[in-house]
Amino acid sequence: MSVYLQDIPLSDAKTIFQSALEAAGLWRILGIETIPLDENTCGRVLTESVWAKISSPHYHASAMDGFAVRASETVGALPSDPITLKIGPHACYLDTGDALPAGFNAVIPIENVESLDRHGGISTMIRNPVAIRIRGAVTPWSHVRPMGEDIVQSQLVLSAGQVLRPVDLGAIAAAGYQEVKTSRPPRVAILPTGTELVPLGSTLKAGDILEYNSLVLAAQVKTWGGVPTRYSIVPDEMDTICRVVAEAAQSHDLVLLNAGSSAGAEDFSSKVVEKLGTLLVHGVAVRPGHPVILGLINQVGASSGSVENETGPKRTPIIGIPGYPVSAALTGEIFVEPLLAKWLGRNQIELPVEHARLTHKITSPGGDDDYVRVVLGRVGEKKLASPLPRGAGIITSLARADGIVILPQGVQGAEAGDMVDVHLYRSQAEIERTIFCIGSHDMTIDILAQYLSEYNRRLVSANVGSQGGLIALKRGDAHIAGSHLLDPETGSYNLKYIHQYLSGVQVNVYGFVGRKQGLMIRKGNPKGIRGLEDLTRNDVSFINRQRGAGTRVLLDYQLSKRMIDVNSIHGFHQEEYTHLGVAAAVASGRADCGLGIPAAAQSLNLDFIPLFDETYQLIIPRVLVETMLLSPLFEVINSSRFKLAVAEMPGYEVNDMGVLVAEV
Amino acid sequence: MSVYLQDIPLSDAKTIFQSALEAAGLWRILGIETIPLDENTCGRVLTESVWAKISSPHYHASAMDGFAVRASETVGALPSDPITLKIGPHACYLDTGDALPAGFNAVIPIENVESLDRHGGISTMIRNPVAIRIRGAVTPWSHVRPMGEDIVQSQLVLSAGQVLRPVDLGAIAAAGYQEVKTSRPPRVAILPTGTELVPLGSTLKAGDILEYNSLVLAAQVKTWGGVPTRYSIVPDEMDTICRVVAEAAQSHDLVLLNAGSSAGAEDFSSKVVEKLGTLLVHGVAVRPGHPVILGLINQVGASSGSVENETGPKRTPIIGIPGYPVSAALTGEIFVEPLLAKWLGRNQIELPVEHARLTHKITSPGGDDDYVRVVLGRVGEKKLASPLPRGAGIITSLARADGIVILPQGVQGAEAGDMVDVHLYRSQAEIERTIFCIGSHDMTIDILAQYLSEYNRRLVSANVGSQGGLIALKRGDAHIAGSHLLDPETGSYNLKYIHQYLSGVQVNVYGFVGRKQGLMIRKGNPKGIRGLEDLTRNDVSFINRQRGAGTRVLLDYQLSKRMIDVNSIHGFHQEEYTHLGVAAAVASGRADCGLGIPAAAQSLNLDFIPLFDETYQLIIPRVLVETMLLSPLFEVINSSRFKLAVAEMPGYEVNDMGVLVAEV
Repeated sequence: MSVYLQDIPLSDAKTIFQSALEAAGLWRILGIETIPLDENTCGRVLTESVWAKISSPHYHASAMDGFAVRASETVGALPSDPITLKIGPHACYLDTGDALPAGFNAVIPIENVESLDRHGGISTMIRNPVAIRIRGAVTPWSHVRPMGEDIVQSQLVLSAGQVLRPVDLGAIAAAGYQEVKTSRPPRVAILPTGTELVPLGSTLKAGDILEYNSLVLAAQVKTWGGVPTRYSIVPDEMDTICRVVAEAAQSHDLVLLNAGSSAGAEDFSSKVVEKLGTLLVHGVAVRPGHPVILGLINQVGASSGSVENETGPKRTPIIGIPGYPVSAALTGEIFVEPLLAKWLGRNQIELPVEHARLTHKITSPGGDDDYVRVVLGRVGEKKLASPLPRGAGIITSLARADGIVILPQGVQGAEAGDMVDVHLYRSQAEIERTIFCIGSHDMTIDILAQYLSEYNRRLVSANVGSQGGLIALKRGDAHIAGSHLLDPETGSYNLKYIHQYLSGVQVNVYGFVGRKQGLMIRKGNPKGIRGLEDLTRNDVSFINRQRGAGTRVLLDYQLSKRMIDVNSIHGFHQEEYTHLGVAAAVASGRADCGLGIPAAAQSLNLDFIPLFDETYQLIIPRVLVETMLLSPLFEVINSSRFKLAVAEMPGYEVNDMGVLVAEV
Repeated sequence: MSVYLQDIPLSDAKTIFQSALEAAGLWRILGIETIPLDENTCGRVLTESVWAKISSPHYHASAMDGFAVRASETVGALPSDPITLKIGPHACYLDTGDALPAGFNAVIPIENVESLDRHGGISTMIRNPVAIRIRGAVTPWSHVRPMGEDIVQSQLVLSAGQVLRPVDLGAIAAAGYQEVKTSRPPRVAILPTGTELVPLGSTLKAGDILEYNSLVLAAQVKTWGGVPTRYSIVPDEMDTICRVVAEAAQSHDLVLLNAGSSAGAEDFSSKVVEKLGTLLVHGVAVRPGHPVILGLINQVGASSGSVENETGPKRTPIIGIPGYPVSAALTGEIFVEPLLAKWLGRNQIELPVEHARLTHKITSPGGDDDYVRVVLGRVGEKKLASPLPRGAGIITSLARADGIVILPQGVQGAEAGDMVDVHLYRSQAEIERTIFCIGSHDMTIDILAQYLSEYNRRLVSANVGSQGGLIALKRGDAHIAGSHLLDPETGSYNLKYIHQYLSGVQVNVYGFVGRKQGLMIRKGNPKGIRGLEDLTRNDVSFINRQRGAGTRVLLDYQLSKRMIDVNSIHGFHQEEYTHLGVAAAVASGRADCGLGIPAAAQSLNLDFIPLFDETYQLIIPRVLVETMLLSPLFEVINSSRFKLAVAEMPGYEVNDMGVLVAEV
């Protein structure tokens, strides 16, 4: 039953939609508005090319402060043999921009004349002398901006389709216009449906879902030049949805029906579209976001089978948008933006494209056009793209994304090291300011990111565990690795592993934090857990960190020291990638305990049993240490302000922070 | 007297301004506003990092439509040995997103179960069976989105300084917020001053200047996140300007005083700033735009020498902005945008940079930072930057500009062929759609540009004359050359010159238009001009085209045929670069006649004496003929719609338009 009508290729879906809109007379600029030229005109789209109504300047204008003369009357003037011109008939003072009086054809700048008083002496009334004396001839039209120098009446100033920018407004005004013909902004209704949805600010209970897709979609529509209307949440009732959709279709150019577009028992969208008009497409082979619906709603007064009406369209397109937030935002980009572009008469937004090397493998089923969000950075000369978590529910992955990689249908993923085209959500400049920090998760890395943002640096961190971080450094895929790998034989941290994983790469090791590790447990310790020995109890479930994490290395070492069999621990094979992930598992009752740091426990109001002290260090390739990019990092980790902020968090000490511990 | 106080380097000017703002407590975010999350929040700047208040999901959610189970109760289920679970105690139907009931820890998708009715048969009530039968075990937490999968309460979601985008609003909402702390948009007063200024829509007389700088500045301020107030035009009266500036400074964060910033007799700006506060800088070594003023106005109640007051600043910065429109817009970019960025707490806008090869030499005095506007295109593999006219009055050059090249102080120009860094005003994608058309000016090229814009192509034309166009093709600096070079020996067009200038380059020659050439004269022919013979008359002045123009070649040939001495023609050495330029010179009385085309004469309401027929062709390198870029060009010039539009203009015939005339 959870089968879509069909998942058709994206290009087919677009063709079907466009053809239906053409047939309905809706694949064109929706309407034209003549609006006054003011600062709000910016961003509107020109629907007619602008041809100059007037020339600019519209008269011969002085290009300098000076005196208008007749060039022919200056012929023969020499330094040793000046010519005197009387003010009035033969010379006339002009400010820059003043009109050349009739009969005059050149301007002599004020600094090149001697102003004379009535006695023939040098006048102090520089602008209003009785005569001027010149010591050089001038050619006709010198220091004059002739009529039409900038714009000649009738010339093309701007072509239709231009999205108006501040300077364009100036050019249109200079061409003699007070008003401009622009496309009418499309009105877009956004209807959130779902009995499980609650508005922002609600007190949440399990099963409630905060409704913010309509916020994202409305902001997208506004950004793209449309006028959004956000409707209140509509419960999952077929008749209610039909009523609201029909109403919205009457007063809007486009209806976005959010969620209910899948094929579940309470997914009414396709039925609503079938009932009120024509269902064109249900299911598109894009990932995330395949349960998309495309259709046309008949407006009241038009029957389901009515033919198109060019002069007064009677049909309103509707897009059924999937419920997962990432799918919803992407559906906006793929289907809504191009439609608004057409209706506004502008080009579709084309994101700049950057080639980059993938830091990790991407798997793709191959049946869909697969949109993979990535973060971007430059390490040395290499542009790197690091894939973000793929889940359709992870809205933070969209907010964090610097760009998107599209793996077309038929391509089954890409390997680490492959070059990919990244469509950029952020500017080149922002990406150049990005510090890639990879390796072990520690909550102070978030604080570090916050501090670095004050220095115009963007810290992007990926939690792949300490070992993963060292491997990334070796490949040149990161600027910094955070690591706390214990060498059980010596009790020291990281050095043995640096030799093992980073041979051939010179690195500096900087102290960062000393921290406690211990067991996170629910408030009040209901299971009476005291230490690692309790993990084997039948009534205790554990949540583990992934292999390669420093915390996992620590656990494995401590368990083997105690000769505890890992298979006797319930949940040992359940893995999380961060301290907060472990804390969340304990807080939610998914597990009774997990090994981690006190700050994570405190964040989720858990109790904490301290067990071990450990050292968390930053490892940085020596070639990067002196770069402009990283210099704010050293400033921050050597500042008392940052040290204090970290020391105030539970379980941290900062004695070695910023200290160069080793050069390897 | 037209000497600035000093033209100091740009970096010095910025440092002085910043230091004064720091001393006045004004070099910081101006204020913080807590605003609701809605579509209008987009574009605002975060002033505090956002940390998650809630986890997302905030409960264990089913990731599928299916049945919640206990993983332990599924152990042992096999295809051949199914397990039956009773609905209620052992299984429970969930829609995607529903909360996992207490005690359950996995979900089995609905398509993987058999629903049973009360008799043990397959139930048709798929969602409400009595029991389910499963034929495989599941692991704990499978098909469950555990609490915190997306966001764990307390994690960093967005850093301060982020300019909010639609997806960011979603992330903030998902993190449990309804409101967000953003910077207060700065209020900017824009004061146009000048007795010569008239508002848009005025009937113009000589010397009037249309006031649209305030429009451009207001649109810039709005685009950059400020709130502009446009004041009415203030005449050049010291007291009035002082009164309006003082008033504006009370109610705004920044005052932009437009024009009067030079040192002419009616340039009051520096005196106003000195009187009302502190003049910090008068004159910056940037071109265009050096008469910039930077200062601070004392608000009423604060004396001129008052010290800063951190809690309630008593001073308002003022920027005196030069009057030429290009200078005004550039001053906005250089001084206003960075200040607004600081006040808003965001990064300054950094335009993407592209390397390109200059098509023409740029001369620069070397004393200033020289901002040179260019158009960009790609011909084959070469990115090309073609400098636009430099005049500070030419607002169309800003509207046409694709980017800007900055020649720093001390650099005296750049040569054709030099690689330069271009700061882009337009997207890469737009530049990739650009067709460079160079050579002879014909008015139908503007019409062609308009038609091509419908095909998503941007035709950028440079008028360098027919010969210049062929030379540009030879260098690989253009896609198309428009040419009408007569070979007097054969009476044919272009071929001889193509052999001469384009050796080694294979080109196709396409017919474009046949057109009349003749003399443009003022309405009613007041000077009684009948033909070229009249040009030598003492009472007749002529306006010429530049050397290398096809029209000039034609003129030179016809004059030599008639044995007319060019030195006997008044104005022969006055040159314009376009037919419209010649027409404007005649219309304005600068000259009595000029050689050109009837369409130009008609545009400016001139009379026309037809003298010669000529052939204007398009010459295109053969390697470019089959490209995607140019394919719409061929479609247009072979369309009857375009041919008709051209044929309707006076003096054109289109019989050969689009015909491949020669392959060379």
